[in-house]
Amino acid sequence: MTTAALDLIIMAAGKGTRMKSRRPKVLQHLAGRPLLAHVLAAAAPLGPRRVVVVTGHGAMEVEAACAGWERPGAGFDLQFVRQEPQLGTGHAVQQAMPRLTNDGTVVVLSGDVPLTRPETLQALVQASAGERLALLTVRLPDPTGYGRIVRGTDGMVQRIVEHKDASEAERAISEIYSGIMAVPARWLAPWLARLRNDNAQGEYYLTDIVAMAVQDGVPVAAHCIADALQVEGVNSPAQLAALERAHQRRQAEALMEQGVRLADPARFDLRDDARSGARGELACGQDVEIDVGCIFTGRVEIGAGARIGAYCCIGNASIAAGAVIHPFTHIDGEQAGARVGEGALVGPFARLRPGAQLGREVHIGNFVEVKNSTLADGAKANHLAYLGDASVGERVNYGAGSITANYDGANKHRTVIEADAHIGSNCVLVAPVTIGAGGTVGGGSTITKNTPPGALSVARGKQVSLDASKWQRPVKQPKTA
Amino acid sequence: MTTAALDLIIMAAGKGTRMKSRRPKVLQHLAGRPLLAHVLAAAAPLGPRRVVVVTGHGAMEVEAACAGWERPGAGFDLQFVRQEPQLGTGHAVQQAMPRLTNDGTVVVLSGDVPLTRPETLQALVQASAGERLALLTVRLPDPTGYGRIVRGTDGMVQRIVEHKDASEAERAISEIYSGIMAVPARWLAPWLARLRNDNAQGEYYLTDIVAMAVQDGVPVAAHCIADALQVEGVNSPAQLAALERAHQRRQAEALMEQGVRLADPARFDLRDDARSGARGELACGQDVEIDVGCIFTGRVEIGAGARIGAYCCIGNASIAAGAVIHPFTHIDGEQAGARVGEGALVGPFARLRPGAQLGREVHIGNFVEVKNSTLADGAKANHLAYLGDASVGERVNYGAGSITANYDGANKHRTVIEADAHIGSNCVLVAPVTIGAGGTVGGGSTITKNTPPGALSVARGKQVSLDASKWQRPVKQPKTA
Amino acid sequence: MTTAALDLIIMAAGKGTRMKSRRPKVLQHLAGRPLLAHVLAAAAPLGPRRVVVVTGHGAMEVEAACAGWERPGAGFDLQFVRQEPQLGTGHAVQQAMPRLTNDGTVVVLSGDVPLTRPETLQALVQASAGERLALLTVRLPDPTGYGRIVRGTDGMVQRIVEHKDASEAERAISEIYSGIMAVPARWLAPWLARLRNDNAQGEYYLTDIVAMAVQDGVPVAAHCIADALQVEGVNSPAQLAALERAHQRRQAEALMEQGVRLADPARFDLRDDARSGARGELACGQDVEIDVGCIFTGRVEIGAGARIGAYCCIGNASIAAGAVIHPFTHIDGEQAGARVGEGALVGPFARLRPGAQLGREVHIGNFVEVKNSTLADGAKANHLAYLGDASVGERVNYGAGSITANYDGANKHRTVIEADAHIGSNCVLVAPVTIGAGGTVGGGSTITKNTPPGALSVARGKQVSLDASKWQRPVKQPKTA
Repeated sequence: MTTAALDLIIMAAGKGTRMKSRRPKVLQHLAGRPLLAHVLAAAAPLGPRRVVVVTGHGAMEVEAACAGWERPGAGFDLQFVRQEPQLGTGHAVQQAMPRLTNDGTVVVLSGDVPLTRPETLQALVQASAGERLALLTVRLPDPTGYGRIVRGTDGMVQRIVEHKDASEAERAISEIYSGIMAVPARWLAPWLARLRNDNAQGEYYLTDIVAMAVQDGVPVAAHCIADALQVEGVNSPAQLAALERAHQRRQAEALMEQGVRLADPARFDLRDDARSGARGELACGQDVEIDVGCIFTGRVEIGAGARIGAYCCIGNASIAAGAVIHPFTHIDGEQAGARVGEGALVGPFARLRPGAQLGREVHIGNFVEVKNSTLADGAKANHLAYLGDASVGERVNYGAGSITANYDGANKHRTVIEADAHIGSNCVLVAPVTIGAGGTVGGGSTITKNTPPGALSVARGKQVSLDASKWQRPVKQPKTA
Repeated sequence: MTTAALDLIIMAAGKGTRMKSRRPKVLQHLAGRPLLAHVLAAAAPLGPRRVVVVTGHGAMEVEAACAGWERPGAGFDLQFVRQEPQLGTGHAVQQAMPRLTNDGTVVVLSGDVPLTRPETLQALVQASAGERLALLTVRLPDPTGYGRIVRGTDGMVQRIVEHKDASEAERAISEIYSGIMAVPARWLAPWLARLRNDNAQGEYYLTDIVAMAVQDGVPVAAHCIADALQVEGVNSPAQLAALERAHQRRQAEALMEQGVRLADPARFDLRDDARSGARGELACGQDVEIDVGCIFTGRVEIGAGARIGAYCCIGNASIAAGAVIHPFTHIDGEQAGARVGEGALVGPFARLRPGAQLGREVHIGNFVEVKNSTLADGAKANHLAYLGDASVGERVNYGAGSITANYDGANKHRTVIEADAHIGSNCVLVAPVTIGAGGTVGGGSTITKNTPPGALSVARGKQVSLDASKWQRPVKQPKTA
Repeated sequence: MTTAALDLIIMAAGKGTRMKSRRPKVLQHLAGRPLLAHVLAAAAPLGPRRVVVVTGHGAMEVEAACAGWERPGAGFDLQFVRQEPQLGTGHAVQQAMPRLTNDGTVVVLSGDVPLTRPETLQALVQASAGERLALLTVRLPDPTGYGRIVRGTDGMVQRIVEHKDASEAERAISEIYSGIMAVPARWLAPWLARLRNDNAQGEYYLTDIVAMAVQDGVPVAAHCIADALQVEGVNSPAQLAALERAHQRRQAEALMEQGVRLADPARFDLRDDARSGARGELACGQDVEIDVGCIFTGRVEIGAGARIGAYCCIGNASIAAGAVIHPFTHIDGEQAGARVGEGALVGPFARLRPGAQLGREVHIGNFVEVKNSTLADGAKANHLAYLGDASVGERVNYGAGSITANYDGANKHRTVIEADAHIGSNCVLVAPVTIGAGGTVGGGSTITKNTPPGALSVARGKQVSLDASKWQRPVKQPKTA
């Protein structure tokens, strides 16, 4: 097939008025990633030589955003041109042409059409074959209002006829143009030069080149798909939401295809981490089960046989084989990551924050928060507790309501709890402090100094009781007006 | 168009046997509001002079419920008549007529048809034009079983033909009668008087007046809509659930139309506050993002750029611009309201109760409850804590596990924490008490007396350790049978 | 109708390659129950004499799993035969025949078709009437690719024609064979003996007996249903998820039919308890309301007028009349059960574990965990607390942050809090210990000895403050590289 070099033009100048947003349309997020980044990711497997993004509304913001992204496929050269004022799709492409050489094939994409599949673009380029104008078309159940693709007996496109100009027979055609094309640069440049804006909108329409191609005897091929989602653009929050759901559904299906068991594919979300830009990826071992309503963010690994309960939010984390995450668990490792060891039990209502590292068979129960802490194999913190900046040894039992006081108001300090220690309930371990191996801390103690191994350490007041002769229970006061 | 005064008759006497409920059918809730209140709200923009509700089953309960509602549109006079026994729709309307004068247009509505749009009723009244019988009709994809609307060449209704009596040609008609009509009272009264119950059910059918109108040469207009939801009634929990979802979908679409970004419009709920009756209203600034599964109750305001995480329940609250509400946050301001300041971070797993007032950049973290408390700008309570009846100054750091003991078993008292104070972990502040500005309370302290500004205050026992010579760890006892 | 004894053959030998699971396909879970258990439950009402399960892949695992199940309908004899190697459906049935006698009717089922209704099987058996081959057939909107059922003018089946061999007229037939049949054993045995494997796959096809029946003059009846879900098999995680949703939807509809009000039937789950095998059953009184996203597991009873908030997970529990369960409440009684008394309020963010027994009007608030504890009428634990192995008297107020230290690192002990006691905030009650009736425990106290009734008991340090002359606040240290 074609061996010509590929260049991409991505139209990203539109304002997106119906989005009613301050954010340029192509930077709106779908699955935590800007629309434009989806387009780039879909195009990257084509191995383009150069990508020219045509910006306009919010140009600086768009350009700045692109600078920060991980470059998918890495190899291409990303450039920007401004389209100001914006005089139509043909005009947009005209702005980009000076950045391209004459020897390649140009693929024209829209920055607000996020769900095109790479293999679709590949097929389009092959249809162009370095010598044809190739249109990406789609068959719609109801094409009313769209221009129809009129093909000749050889299957080549003869023209695009507007709905209002179409004959009865032409209106029966369900194939329409998607806005995406591939075309040799050596044809595109002269056609663009011939575009005219003597129409109602006073705009230069890129589609006018179809007639020019036919006129010039250049074959016009069409690669037609049935899946309209691939060419749907985002013009409103409702369209964005519809594509979001379609994309999530696709991701759910891809995971099920791999064997992942989803309790409800309509209640599943996998997203990029919008803060770090980390790609949303869910790598699952065999026999992973994911209950309803879970949300995954960034890169998450789940080992074989692990089960994720309902309504868990898990980001940037690794869950080892056989672990069970109970419902309502919130895990976000952010940059530092979070790790749940083999056979560990976490939740319900647990929260693991960056740097939480749980060993094998660790138990983290309800209303427990773990941050930047390591729990060795078999350690347990089952109820209402905080572990921050702590190193917890094997088999430690960390009591209900206990807190590591890791922050003195100015600096953070570490708490070390050595193996087999038993921390009672409602203790405060004031860091820096070490609880010796096998030691016990009595319930309600505030520990400010290291404790010896094996010892019982307490720090609490003496219990006294005042009877009714010395103390009276408060009684309900009348409200004062 | 018509300038005649409008009166409404709302049929609300039915039992709703299939609901299998003790509650009268018209008081069943849709989006937290009784069905009958939806009907009143849809009719209020017509500016009716008088509304007559025809009650029957559960009449006293229905009448009592109406008394408590905020009167939409305010101006109209609400009356009740009882229909006992219930002898059909015509009989229901007959009961209401003595309350109406002869000079107006009467709109007949059903109290169990909640989703009619005000503009539809407006159009129906205009079709009546003060001199016609006007029927609200709907075009159904499958009208099998329903009576069909037979129109003449002038577009006026000639008759309603029952399915079983319809010819082949008539069965091809997809337009059916909805049960809603507008009719000049001067025509309605004599027609009602002529109704007969010589039918299988022994009931008086309101639809029989259509034939009378034709007979009397009164034109019968029809306002036909395509959206069947607007005329669907509730007869069973399944229908109620279907209309609930349709209504929520509509609300979601209206918000997206305004620019609000919903991650999944199928997982969004906005409801009246069923306790206070406060209308479900969500007022959003620009670029508000709402993640999946959120539920809003009563009046909620969300400022520009604020983000609401997944599975938040938010009622009667104001969230300022740029605030971020993390997943699993429960906010309910009830009558007192709750407020989250600009740029504040709340959750995950946080709960704000009535009177929670958070300033700018306040942080409320996991497993923290705030009730009737003010937190000034920059204050933080990040972990497992309770703040009740407290005034918290700027930049205060309120430690993990700390509690305001605001209730002595009989009365509630206030805690004051002045600016820049640092409260350690697992403290108890026994109200009434004041922590002086810039003071520090050591972890694990129970503070019963005011503390001086700038000082370190502690109230804890001395730490001691007993080694193995003096203390032995408990050992697992065999279970006694 | 038929009075012949019934025997069942369930084909359960398939590997289910597309499931990509280590688990045999028929043990995959739908609503917490293995597919094979669904099939057995659907067939049990037929009152079979004997059930022969044909195992193959994972045979030992399948047989072991069946051993543990509660036997639905109890009366039948369950046997297993191995099919090794697996040479087609006819071959599978051949393996089972030696276990059956010649005098009954045999129903052939697939272990991976979980949603067949008992009444459908009943009708199939009646169509067989002890003397016919009866096929369960289904009418599909698009039968492309399936073999069609060709019936004679008498309604009896003449043959099954493969799609590729079908004439235009035959392709217009939408009735296809489901794989389920009922057939007198006296016919089945000789037909099986005549099966041949001279086909592309080299397999013995059970459907070949249809031609034999016609040839032998045995009438072939067909019981045709429209609901394709009843005969859909599970071959992939995507199909499993689709059937899961369909099954949940059915369960939701059945509950609504009984009067239960579901806020969203698409967001409702009722499952078996996969650990105990307890059947998923939800028994609701009148006017029960269940908000979106709830998940019920095992047997759950909900009394009249009780309300279940959004996103609750409730298993093996009884919720009494008028109780209100706020959102994000996690209740799992497991084997021991959990009980919520009349008019009690629980949640949000509450967790009830096995043996939690709440009396009337008990309040359990946010971030509170209750395990193996009894709370008498009117007791309250409203904020961040743990009650484990405790007996709590009437009207006790259990303060925020308070903990029963029930575990000394080796053994569990009970805490008794007598009626009307008031436990302050952040207390630790070190079990075994008793708080006397009407007593008060001061906030921040660690109670290790019994306290007298009516007394104020405290165990805390003396409050002291160090001013700036004696103490300096920590200052932020520069990070050391």
